[in-house]
Amino acid sequence: MVIRQTSNVMQMISVEEARAYILRHFAPLEAERVELLDALDRVLTEDIVSPIHVPPHNNSAMDGYAVRAQDIRGASKTNPIRLNVVADLGAGYVPDAEVTQDTAVRIMTGAVIPRGADTVVRFEETSEAVDQKASGKGSGSVEILNAPERGANVRLAGEDIRAGEIVLRKGTLLRPPEIGLLASIGQSKVNVHRRPRVAILATGDELVEIDAPLSEGKIRNSNEYSNAAAVLKAGGVPIRLGIARDNVQDLTRKIRKGVDAGADLFITSAGVSVGDYDIVKDVLNSEGEMHFWQVNMKPGKPLAFGIVGGVPLLGLPGNPVSAIVSFETFARPAILTMLGKTKFARPQVEAILQDRAENNAGRRNYIRVFVSRNGNGEYTAMTTGEQGSGILSSITRANGLLEMPPEDLEYKPGARVRVTMLDYPEEI
Amino acid sequence: MVIRQTSNVMQMISVEEARAYILRHFAPLEAERVELLDALDRVLTEDIVSPIHVPPHNNSAMDGYAVRAQDIRGASKTNPIRLNVVADLGAGYVPDAEVTQDTAVRIMTGAVIPRGADTVVRFEETSEAVDQKASGKGSGSVEILNAPERGANVRLAGEDIRAGEIVLRKGTLLRPPEIGLLASIGQSKVNVHRRPRVAILATGDELVEIDAPLSEGKIRNSNEYSNAAAVLKAGGVPIRLGIARDNVQDLTRKIRKGVDAGADLFITSAGVSVGDYDIVKDVLNSEGEMHFWQVNMKPGKPLAFGIVGGVPLLGLPGNPVSAIVSFETFARPAILTMLGKTKFARPQVEAILQDRAENNAGRRNYIRVFVSRNGNGEYTAMTTGEQGSGILSSITRANGLLEMPPEDLEYKPGARVRVTMLDYPEEI
Repeated sequence: MVIRQTSNVMQMISVEEARAYILRHFAPLEAERVELLDALDRVLTEDIVSPIHVPPHNNSAMDGYAVRAQDIRGASKTNPIRLNVVADLGAGYVPDAEVTQDTAVRIMTGAVIPRGADTVVRFEETSEAVDQKASGKGSGSVEILNAPERGANVRLAGEDIRAGEIVLRKGTLLRPPEIGLLASIGQSKVNVHRRPRVAILATGDELVEIDAPLSEGKIRNSNEYSNAAAVLKAGGVPIRLGIARDNVQDLTRKIRKGVDAGADLFITSAGVSVGDYDIVKDVLNSEGEMHFWQVNMKPGKPLAFGIVGGVPLLGLPGNPVSAIVSFETFARPAILTMLGKTKFARPQVEAILQDRAENNAGRRNYIRVFVSRNGNGEYTAMTTGEQGSGILSSITRANGLLEMPPEDLEYKPGARVRVTMLDYPEEI
Repeated sequence: MVIRQTSNVMQMISVEEARAYILRHFAPLEAERVELLDALDRVLTEDIVSPIHVPPHNNSAMDGYAVRAQDIRGASKTNPIRLNVVADLGAGYVPDAEVTQDTAVRIMTGAVIPRGADTVVRFEETSEAVDQKASGKGSGSVEILNAPERGANVRLAGEDIRAGEIVLRKGTLLRPPEIGLLASIGQSKVNVHRRPRVAILATGDELVEIDAPLSEGKIRNSNEYSNAAAVLKAGGVPIRLGIARDNVQDLTRKIRKGVDAGADLFITSAGVSVGDYDIVKDVLNSEGEMHFWQVNMKPGKPLAFGIVGGVPLLGLPGNPVSAIVSFETFARPAILTMLGKTKFARPQVEAILQDRAENNAGRRNYIRVFVSRNGNGEYTAMTTGEQGSGILSSITRANGLLEMPPEDLEYKPGARVRVTMLDYPEEI
């Protein structure tokens, strides 16, 4: 696909074309070996083979008495069978006693099954449940009041994981259970894709730092913060380069700074739309190979993508809402790809629209909506007011985006619509 | 509710009773003032009032020409109206020119509307789109080819946020858009509930550190890692205390260490079920005021809760899967409450069960399932194999929990079931 800019006339491309073109430039990053807890929410770069059985030995699944099934056949409350208790065994200790005819070992959950025993009878099915004083704990015998089948309450060595088995495959996302599993097989460090470093540069003579006073004509550099926060949420490491002024020198210097800082992705905001002063576009063009697109979406029409100093660079629009929607649409999938994730669609729900949504842009319109559940357990969606691309407050009130294709001019109240969830109504 | 332990006989309580009792002991933690990006995913402790209008001035929503609507009435391609261009204005600069009769100022998106002008005509509707050379850029005049209504393409000061308005209320969760909004009004620091510190202590003579060799009868301390990972995911700060041996001295020392470390929640694992050696229970009882419960759930029946040294302490079961399900059910809501979150249910989906699920525990059974979408867009759920409370591998293959109440003994393939999602099929 060759997309060229001719003077101020640029080709309009679809969201899917732009995203596919961009994502072709990203692949999972190389591995790094990290401490187990630092691997949380990251993706394995190797198959993990267990060196051991888990559990390592046959052990008791219950607190009770380790017995031979043949000795307790027919035991019941009316026909109790008395066994001599030859040891009291806690988890973590090696049984030195053996269970022989008509004997038992008092055993705790997790303790290794002693030689000779094949079954565990739970405390609740012995005289210990009735009268602790009469139990095998410190005393010499116990009455068995039930006859579970042979093998009952015995966890077999390797029943969770067998030595030599691949327990987690390359590409697995590590959540708390996977972290626990890796701990259980002694994997204190693990190889995962490293986190992408994302350089963030805002451009524009109108911008001031967020703690600076506002003189006339200026606005605060909010995109740096929403972009950095979105990078963190996606699992990347933001490199904040601050503001570049609209002159060749400052822009060139800061773009080179981001490249030199080892960025895996470079995100700029503003300066890429049709009629903008050409300085940002000129500098990007002279530093790298760029496309300047108009994407068939609202907000987020202007978008630039290319390679600058070997680093993929995504030029987002300057309007705050456009920047957020474009980040969500193009930057987030790129970051997740570098992290080794393969599934990164946002979940969608079907919701009943409560008010009117309209699209007179002739483009795919991303309407900000708030989704909640009504009394019938159905999802409902309400637009969050003024949908201009500068209206940040309307996206702070939203938890989802309703995509209206260009040919759909209006959805009336009551329409069933699909909403892409940024957050869940259960959670926000 | 008074729940007492009498010898080995403990009362069975419902999940809801246990959770309600536990959550009564937690409230949002006090505020701390943090840098804006550190406030991501945290909850405001104050209403935020904007000191400024956003945008601060009337400004251009488009790149074009700032004009007086009255001067361009009737303009069209066949009836172009020529205006003298008196200035070229970029965003960030204060207009010194005024728009008077039959003049225009070339203006960039975001630039302050010059005095006299009331409307912006986009480049596309001027001679600049046709022939850049003939445009007002560097030349003295421009032809207007359309007559948008008065006020078109002008963003009014305060249309996003008005000075004095509450822009975000106490209790708001700060996501990237909220971070951007706070930046736009110059809020470089913000007051949020501090993160809870969660002490984590594993107990048991059978445990060894994850990088230590395994001698007979020993297993690795995996719960410390899955618990610490789950604390991190919920937004807490884990304080890892390692392993306490089953003796009064070591247990007492390590419990006091966690209390002295300023824990807001203390999580222990193992040592709280009916038949366990009483050492953990004895030490907890002598250090604090404890309940030892049997909760009507599987896995996760044994559970302890109380106050030790002023710190709420949750005693989770020792089995790895029980610990994870109990953490999810009781510890996660406690952590989210301390963070100031009020909504923390996991989303549920309705899914078609693909295989058989059974419940012979007489308790609420949390069946591990993997949910995906079939070709019709419906969710399907498949159990992830052996459901024993020691089988960590089956929870690593799951993305949801199917809760079977005690009275439901079996769900057949094809049954429509509700699944609580730990992660989304779109995402894992």
